[in-house]
Amino acid sequence: MSLTVFRRSHFNAAHRLYRKDWDDEKNQLVFGKCNNPNFHGHNYELIVGLTGEIDQETGFLIDMEELKKYIKEEIEDYLDHKNLNIEIAEFQELNPTMENIAVVIWNRLRKRIDAKFEISVKLYETPRNFVIYTG
Amino acid sequence: MSLTVFRRSHFNAAHRLYRKDWDDEKNQLVFGKCNNPNFHGHNYELIVGLTGEIDQETGFLIDMEELKKYIKEEIEDYLDHKNLNIEIAEFQELNPTMENIAVVIWNRLRKRIDAKFEISVKLYETPRNFVIYTG
Amino acid sequence: MSLTVFRRSHFNAAHRLYRKDWDDEKNQLVFGKCNNPNFHGHNYELIVGLTGEIDQETGFLIDMEELKKYIKEEIEDYLDHKNLNIEIAEFQELNPTMENIAVVIWNRLRKRIDAKFEISVKLYETPRNFVIYTG
Amino acid sequence: MSLTVFRRSHFNAAHRLYRKDWDDEKNQLVFGKCNNPNFHGHNYELIVGLTGEIDQETGFLIDMEELKKYIKEEIEDYLDHKNLNIEIAEFQELNPTMENIAVVIWNRLRKRIDAKFEISVKLYETPRNFVIYTG
Amino acid sequence: MSLTVFRRSHFNAAHRLYRKDWDDEKNQLVFGKCNNPNFHGHNYELIVGLTGEIDQETGFLIDMEELKKYIKEEIEDYLDHKNLNIEIAEFQELNPTMENIAVVIWNRLRKRIDAKFEISVKLYETPRNFVIYTG
Amino acid sequence: MSLTVFRRSHFNAAHRLYRKDWDDEKNQLVFGKCNNPNFHGHNYELIVGLTGEIDQETGFLIDMEELKKYIKEEIEDYLDHKNLNIEIAEFQELNPTMENIAVVIWNRLRKRIDAKFEISVKLYETPRNFVIYTG
Repeated sequence: MSLTVFRRSHFNAAHRLYRKDWDDEKNQLVFGKCNNPNFHGHNYELIVGLTGEIDQETGFLIDMEELKKYIKEEIEDYLDHKNLNIEIAEFQELNPTMENIAVVIWNRLRKRIDAKFEISVKLYETPRNFVIYTG
Repeated sequence: MSLTVFRRSHFNAAHRLYRKDWDDEKNQLVFGKCNNPNFHGHNYELIVGLTGEIDQETGFLIDMEELKKYIKEEIEDYLDHKNLNIEIAEFQELNPTMENIAVVIWNRLRKRIDAKFEISVKLYETPRNFVIYTG
Repeated sequence: MSLTVFRRSHFNAAHRLYRKDWDDEKNQLVFGKCNNPNFHGHNYELIVGLTGEIDQETGFLIDMEELKKYIKEEIEDYLDHKNLNIEIAEFQELNPTMENIAVVIWNRLRKRIDAKFEISVKLYETPRNFVIYTG
Repeated sequence: MSLTVFRRSHFNAAHRLYRKDWDDEKNQLVFGKCNNPNFHGHNYELIVGLTGEIDQETGFLIDMEELKKYIKEEIEDYLDHKNLNIEIAEFQELNPTMENIAVVIWNRLRKRIDAKFEISVKLYETPRNFVIYTG
Repeated sequence: MSLTVFRRSHFNAAHRLYRKDWDDEKNQLVFGKCNNPNFHGHNYELIVGLTGEIDQETGFLIDMEELKKYIKEEIEDYLDHKNLNIEIAEFQELNPTMENIAVVIWNRLRKRIDAKFEISVKLYETPRNFVIYTG
Repeated sequence: MSLTVFRRSHFNAAHRLYRKDWDDEKNQLVFGKCNNPNFHGHNYELIVGLTGEIDQETGFLIDMEELKKYIKEEIEDYLDHKNLNIEIAEFQELNPTMENIAVVIWNRLRKRIDAKFEISVKLYETPRNFVIYTG
């Protein structure tokens, strides 16, 4: 028996794809217009899933208000309206691709959410490009 | 080789989250505004998935008109425009959380749909809160 | 020159369509399954539009945080998770059809929002049925 | 650790469901209005997923521009604005159901995309009917 | 005071853009891949709007079940799963562009729906291309 | 008789809301987190509408490929993956609010598109905040 609840949320941010240890030419070749040194940005749509058992007392897997609070505190407050490259600790040495952002989100939630739940992170960078990470 | 077909459908209903064996204070503490004794309601979006093999004759996993009919008869006719707490047998002693509604839907479909298919139920209670149950 | 800004929000509620001064038979004939005396419910999606001039200082028609606050205080806090027939003053003698709900929302916002703005209210009762009211 | 990236794309096409070796009556009985000999058509929404490891150098699972190119060359250029029954080699002896179209898409991508990636194909025939095939 | 109710519906069809009185070269030049002689097709999403006054007795502008019935009988039953060029009378001498389809739909509804209502027709040919016709 | 065709497109960009002639305190007070000096960003969804007459020869109001080309050349190529404050001429002295971006887009299209068409610009800054400008 497998049950997963999902909560959708939203943040927007600026970023740039590049590696400090590559020269401009190589960054441009690999990352193209995503390498704009003045940054560009996205509305990130985030769907967090928790898999586990139904609490027989409440009928909840988890109180969705609780999950909403974790996502707000760990992800929205941390990433919304930010420049990922400049302001977010995890991206000082890590390229803020959607893949890496999903991993960072997962790791932040993993520390906060009860270990009895498996976590999945689905992150839309645009309506056409998205990623799922399950740890 | 894994192939799954999905059918999206819709019903709306009133409900209230609470336990008869808890006093008002505890119900309010745990279920908050979802505990409104006058009920509130939702448009539930339902996506039913069937996993199995393609029928080599027809090229169908199942005739989608047949799946549509099962969903209509077992779920839409049963739950649409209803008060889940008052009118639905399964919720007389079971809290109609989205998790429990998904389980009830899965159980009703399981009795009707050929055992050769695995069933998944995805249920949106709101555009931001949803659940997947796979039995 | 015409510029309109829009803010999307959400509430859910229970309701029943009927007239106290009609007998059961007539209510059933006219309102069908929407007349369920135990209520049913919806996720209402609300899009409020304000038409006016751009403030040359800020580049805003209105600060969207201000519009968000008006919608929260006048509409979401007032209608979300409520039974429209039982708990909302405006529907004590008025049938809570989507048309009448849109008019009630418009009237509540009209009292709160600066008269220099024209107001439009778009209200989805379901993904397939919706209404626009412009006063 | 499982990471999957997804790319959404689009094509539209005409088709007809029927088997050449069945008579009209049986085709009509099994395929109903989908058997219209003059064809009907759909906007197919396609979501291709690739599962694998993050490239530690780039932070990409795969460059999405590369995936976009494969989908364009193998699927969009091949199927868009086509009559599937008449013009597409794979459907000369195969009924173009959404199930079979998904399998054909998967097979075409499998030949093109590096074997280190698992491929999933999600295909919407309509907003309400869709299929996932994972090989 | 302006109030408009909307009903969303759906049909799919095959079509081809061309003029019988033009040669192949000119048809190809003007209509490109939409001129495929073997046809292609679309899922058409249709949103019909009626503008008028609220009926003070019911609180309805019109019973949405009635509007749903008109759309089903005049549009869905007439166009769904059809080849517009071959099977639809209006397109024997008229090119089935989204613009002309919208006009045909409006004309068919205008004959059926009470003259006290203004009619608008919004027709999506794809998620990115659509048209509004108001008579 | 009024007919309007619409084309949906997409770009993403970084921006910051502030006025050079205001001090930090006032910028923060008025623009809040949108004033982040390191920028943030959005996926902008753009819907351009053209109102006019159907060309009786083609059945088109305008060839949608032509409209798509104007939007690509004037808007997408100009704004996509850019920093609006730093890289776009129009925003050197103009605050890049969604209202002002819509006006800039409208002005750029107005110079390019035949004067016989009225132009409308609908711009989503987020799924919840958007604007319509009609000149």
